[in-house]
Amino acid sequence: MSAAQTLQAFCLSVFGILLCVAGVDAQAPAPAPTPMATPLNLMPYPADVQQGSGALRIDASFSVALTGYTESRLDRAVQRFERQLFHQTAIPLTPPKAGAVKSAAARLQIHTDHASKEIQELGEDESYTLEVTSDAAKLNAATPLGVLRGLQTFLQLVEVTSDGFAVPAVTIHDQPRFPWRGTMIDSGRHFIPLDVLKRNVDGMEAVKMSVFHWHLSENQGFRVESKKFPKLHELGSDRLYYTQDEVRDLIAYARDRGIRIVPEFDMPGNSTAWFVGHPELASGPGPYEIERRWGVFDPAMDPSNEKTYKFLDEFIGEMAKLFPDHYFHIGGDEVNGKQWDANPKIQEFKKSHNLANNAELQGYFSKRVQAIVTKHGKAVIGWDEVFIPGVPKDIVIQSWRGQASLAQAASQGYRGILSNGYYIDLGWPAARHYAADPLSGPAANLTPEQQKLVLGGESTMWSEYVNAENIDSRIWPRNAAIAERLWSPQNVIDVPSMYARLDVIGPRLEWLGLTHRSYYRRMLQRIAGTATPEEFAALRMLADVVEPVKDYGREKLAPVEPTSLTPMNRLVDAVPLESDPARRFSDAVDKFIASSCHDAALEASLRAQFIAWRDNDAKLQPLAQRSFLVKEAAQTSADLSALGTAGLAAVDNIAKGAPAPDAWKTQQVAAIQEIQKPKGQLLLMPAASVQKLVEAAATSGACAQTN
Amino acid sequence: MSAAQTLQAFCLSVFGILLCVAGVDAQAPAPAPTPMATPLNLMPYPADVQQGSGALRIDASFSVALTGYTESRLDRAVQRFERQLFHQTAIPLTPPKAGAVKSAAARLQIHTDHASKEIQELGEDESYTLEVTSDAAKLNAATPLGVLRGLQTFLQLVEVTSDGFAVPAVTIHDQPRFPWRGTMIDSGRHFIPLDVLKRNVDGMEAVKMSVFHWHLSENQGFRVESKKFPKLHELGSDRLYYTQDEVRDLIAYARDRGIRIVPEFDMPGNSTAWFVGHPELASGPGPYEIERRWGVFDPAMDPSNEKTYKFLDEFIGEMAKLFPDHYFHIGGDEVNGKQWDANPKIQEFKKSHNLANNAELQGYFSKRVQAIVTKHGKAVIGWDEVFIPGVPKDIVIQSWRGQASLAQAASQGYRGILSNGYYIDLGWPAARHYAADPLSGPAANLTPEQQKLVLGGESTMWSEYVNAENIDSRIWPRNAAIAERLWSPQNVIDVPSMYARLDVIGPRLEWLGLTHRSYYRRMLQRIAGTATPEEFAALRMLADVVEPVKDYGREKLAPVEPTSLTPMNRLVDAVPLESDPARRFSDAVDKFIASSCHDAALEASLRAQFIAWRDNDAKLQPLAQRSFLVKEAAQTSADLSALGTAGLAAVDNIAKGAPAPDAWKTQQVAAIQEIQKPKGQLLLMPAASVQKLVEAAATSGACAQTN
Repeated sequence: MSAAQTLQAFCLSVFGILLCVAGVDAQAPAPAPTPMATPLNLMPYPADVQQGSGALRIDASFSVALTGYTESRLDRAVQRFERQLFHQTAIPLTPPKAGAVKSAAARLQIHTDHASKEIQELGEDESYTLEVTSDAAKLNAATPLGVLRGLQTFLQLVEVTSDGFAVPAVTIHDQPRFPWRGTMIDSGRHFIPLDVLKRNVDGMEAVKMSVFHWHLSENQGFRVESKKFPKLHELGSDRLYYTQDEVRDLIAYARDRGIRIVPEFDMPGNSTAWFVGHPELASGPGPYEIERRWGVFDPAMDPSNEKTYKFLDEFIGEMAKLFPDHYFHIGGDEVNGKQWDANPKIQEFKKSHNLANNAELQGYFSKRVQAIVTKHGKAVIGWDEVFIPGVPKDIVIQSWRGQASLAQAASQGYRGILSNGYYIDLGWPAARHYAADPLSGPAANLTPEQQKLVLGGESTMWSEYVNAENIDSRIWPRNAAIAERLWSPQNVIDVPSMYARLDVIGPRLEWLGLTHRSYYRRMLQRIAGTATPEEFAALRMLADVVEPVKDYGREKLAPVEPTSLTPMNRLVDAVPLESDPARRFSDAVDKFIASSCHDAALEASLRAQFIAWRDNDAKLQPLAQRSFLVKEAAQTSADLSALGTAGLAAVDNIAKGAPAPDAWKTQQVAAIQEIQKPKGQLLLMPAASVQKLVEAAATSGACAQTN
Repeated sequence: MSAAQTLQAFCLSVFGILLCVAGVDAQAPAPAPTPMATPLNLMPYPADVQQGSGALRIDASFSVALTGYTESRLDRAVQRFERQLFHQTAIPLTPPKAGAVKSAAARLQIHTDHASKEIQELGEDESYTLEVTSDAAKLNAATPLGVLRGLQTFLQLVEVTSDGFAVPAVTIHDQPRFPWRGTMIDSGRHFIPLDVLKRNVDGMEAVKMSVFHWHLSENQGFRVESKKFPKLHELGSDRLYYTQDEVRDLIAYARDRGIRIVPEFDMPGNSTAWFVGHPELASGPGPYEIERRWGVFDPAMDPSNEKTYKFLDEFIGEMAKLFPDHYFHIGGDEVNGKQWDANPKIQEFKKSHNLANNAELQGYFSKRVQAIVTKHGKAVIGWDEVFIPGVPKDIVIQSWRGQASLAQAASQGYRGILSNGYYIDLGWPAARHYAADPLSGPAANLTPEQQKLVLGGESTMWSEYVNAENIDSRIWPRNAAIAERLWSPQNVIDVPSMYARLDVIGPRLEWLGLTHRSYYRRMLQRIAGTATPEEFAALRMLADVVEPVKDYGREKLAPVEPTSLTPMNRLVDAVPLESDPARRFSDAVDKFIASSCHDAALEASLRAQFIAWRDNDAKLQPLAQRSFLVKEAAQTSADLSALGTAGLAAVDNIAKGAPAPDAWKTQQVAAIQEIQKPKGQLLLMPAASVQKLVEAAATSGACAQTN
């Protein structure tokens, strides 16, 4: 997946995940934004939307009819649609109606032209047309996949109005920009239970994603039952693995939702968990234990041993049968080569095979494994590192390096998908992921034919710091912004519109069973213990405006080395990765400054906010004495109070109409910069905006010129 | 269950549920409260608690050992315990440990003397002893049931401290006061999905309840698969029924948790759904349709037809095999007799059998059915109405009428359980249920031997206004107070202590999967549609202090007749039945008045509250224009603002130090009384306390003398 050996000169590869983001060209060249004066609350935004007048009322008489080509998957899709419609409206459809009716009188008429492929393929037709008038709605699609996409659009259109639930009149012609729109979940580092995966697949369906990339083996766990080599899961998983029945169950579940499942078995590195049961595969002597720490470790498969390939042939053969998708991910990242260097037999092998260095040795291994995968009827997908001279053209390169890698591959006729920019474990705001475009930077210069080789992208949920409790919140709602980037036209890039729609779509995703919002209070409750309501409110006020440190700060700032057994019960585990209140506060400060600080209503609300922050610490301190989980945030709480005081002073100064003294500003800014340093691995998000306000207050000509 | 024919003279029986609460002696004679200076956060509070010093730390090395008698149920209980401990602390226990270890070094040593019965019986030993020191904990019990109860106590003891999670040192000797501690859920009127039942069974286990009474047939639905008479569920359920496999699954699930499942099939009334598939059972000509309305309806089984008894013999025989519990509930309530009166054959039958009236006819039917139940090896339980002269002594009477019924039955040697006072669908505050004691009022005068015939009680969740979305919130957390009434010693009656503990236990119950808190925001989100954060906060402020009308107000105040198809998407469906913020506000006002209105901190917080209420309506009104579900509460929102204004005026007047003019008081009180009238089926809970404050402000001698 991530930081490769070959780039170690300038990219530090530790903790099993990408430690460099330099050189990322996340900023697409700015095409003209699509005009969206009052955009509908749709995400991803469709390719073409024509708003009409009037609305289709949703009431108990609502019904759905399927015409044209039908199959049981469509019936189930309609039942799911009706269940979701019920969640959104609580209107029971008149019994005994359940599922599609064959009636021309149905309020939603669905027409499907023909079947899609028996095993979903890359690039199948997902287009649809949705026409809604005040009388009825028509959804037309070439294939069931288009119907699935269109049904999600319809559900997003349902809104509460002044006299009931309704869908506004609209005509939508829609199809995706990229065929490969994926999310990877790392079930290796922390096991993620099947029901959690299912609800995330539901979320992916809701935002029209097409691929679930299932990262199934890591140093910390081998997560699939192997009937051929049962020691793999029995000894390599702490008994936390998916049975083959469960795998089949999830594959069928995903297929029903128009989502392919691409399995990944990472090799030759990141494979300690394999060696617990099968030390003979490793390049160094055993025995091995399941790794508990994070990072890049020495154990790697022995590329010089024919038994390794025999084993992999049998194993990949078994998994190729279990996973029907055409693509099979072989990982390929993060081999530090130490075991190879330490093994004379392998050194011998390198010499006898004219392999100049470990990269070439890994290339040899990769070619052998690719041949095995091909033999079993699959095409290889792997991280950047698998792109070695002479690999077959049907390979897909998953790039953590960036658009340049994709451009280089495409210029040689190879296909790729982008993950650089979509590392959702890094804690970036949605806007930053949203700005990453697979066809920006070097890829923008490709010919149209070459651009077609860029298949799309995948967000990656590495799981060092997630488990069943908080994983939803680390994926959603930000993943919806990435889904939009990959589906919608390239010129859909308006960030305020994205956030406005995300504010609506995000909470709705919880109706699917996702817990990205509800988990938060439960985790705070645990942190708070027997807090009084006032203390809990104070904790909430603090928690609402902090975020975990970004990128790889969790490791860097950890007081003790984190492991897979470290409890994830701290504030840093509980708070969302992107604070909505902090974002809104920042917007409010910008707007206030842009108003030359004349907007009285904004001033009043900023003032109220500052007072609340200023007074919050005193309310929280008693709880910090009782709960070690609150105590850890005591300094951050004091900092928030200080920010409140500073903000209030800034507003007071602004109200005086004369610039505040430079000395005051210098002192305040210095204090705020101390506050901006992470504590307890938390960032106090409003600090930068308070600093803006302080600077505005001290700038002559009032604050108007500071923006 | 409920309002019986025989009491119609003074009890109106409609809507299928008890319409009279007069004559209830819910107030137990007040024994001296157990001294609980700083009670532990336990609910139900144990019989005997001796607090020690120090605490047992909970960390990754925590482990559990089972000694003495063991069985697989105990292993599963330990696994569940560990999962729950993980939820409460997020501390992963060191792998590969999962489940009980056989080690004397385990931090929690469990010893079980012997097995409990293969099919859980009424009155089995549930006692346990739990000793916790700073080194280790010991849980000893005669049977697995006692272990189950003790494990829940241990989990409740886990708390966050200043340096980690811990259990305080304590010695507890505990056993239940009553053996029958139940909750009834009505799956008839609204189908309640199996997973929802399961999480409620989890909740029942957490508060040591012993019986799940499953109300399975109603006019609105027949909810169990019958293999003998498949038309019962196929035609009588809108396809919303439990398969026999699902029933067995839930029974095993409940047994694992020390909970018996008592099925109820209501007859001869409340049985329209049976007649959709089997009109030949009815006393009037068919055809029949599933009833959609609420209330008492005419259809009743034909007691004069031998075929009815033949059918019931086969049906009860089938169900007696499916449900292993010794008790079989035959309902027996709410027969209005109209079909009997209209059927000449039945009139003839009455004459020929010397049955003077319909009550005697129902008695005849009841005796016949009781004989069938007995023949199939079960004992009958039924509502008050089944208590007819000469019934066998093994019958159990479930009393909706009250303690007098129980006393009367007990004095004749019959056993009973109390449900009067525990109708949790009526929207009463927890304190009111908590005050109802099975052995108060007339039952207090029974001899000790007779008192033993009073087996306990059951809360009843009738489901006219609940579905999968909000049922948890209609049961929890108030059900925990009832569980305490039935488990804890009779003198555990301190209401502030109960609420203080409920405030801790209530949120924790959500770790079991219950949604009684998280549902609320989702439902408000649906009501709010695309509200801004400020609008949503305003809606929340209003919603936080309203409650649905009490008792049978939902029907009385409904603008159109509610049915089983009425969407439950309104504010009245979304808000909790008991408002915690309103309760705390009321406590604050009482405390302020008790301080002679001299408590400055309280005054400041009341003032802030009043200002927030006063200003709230303006923030909410724009949303009320856009959402019909908010519009319905527009007047209540205006009322809340008026309350804020009135409260502020009262506090201002009090601050002046002289009584406010009588005319002002009169005017304010009149306005508040208008505000107290329900609107949109909602009650604005703080109104009474604001009135108190107004009256205090106008009372000479300042406010001290008004309390």
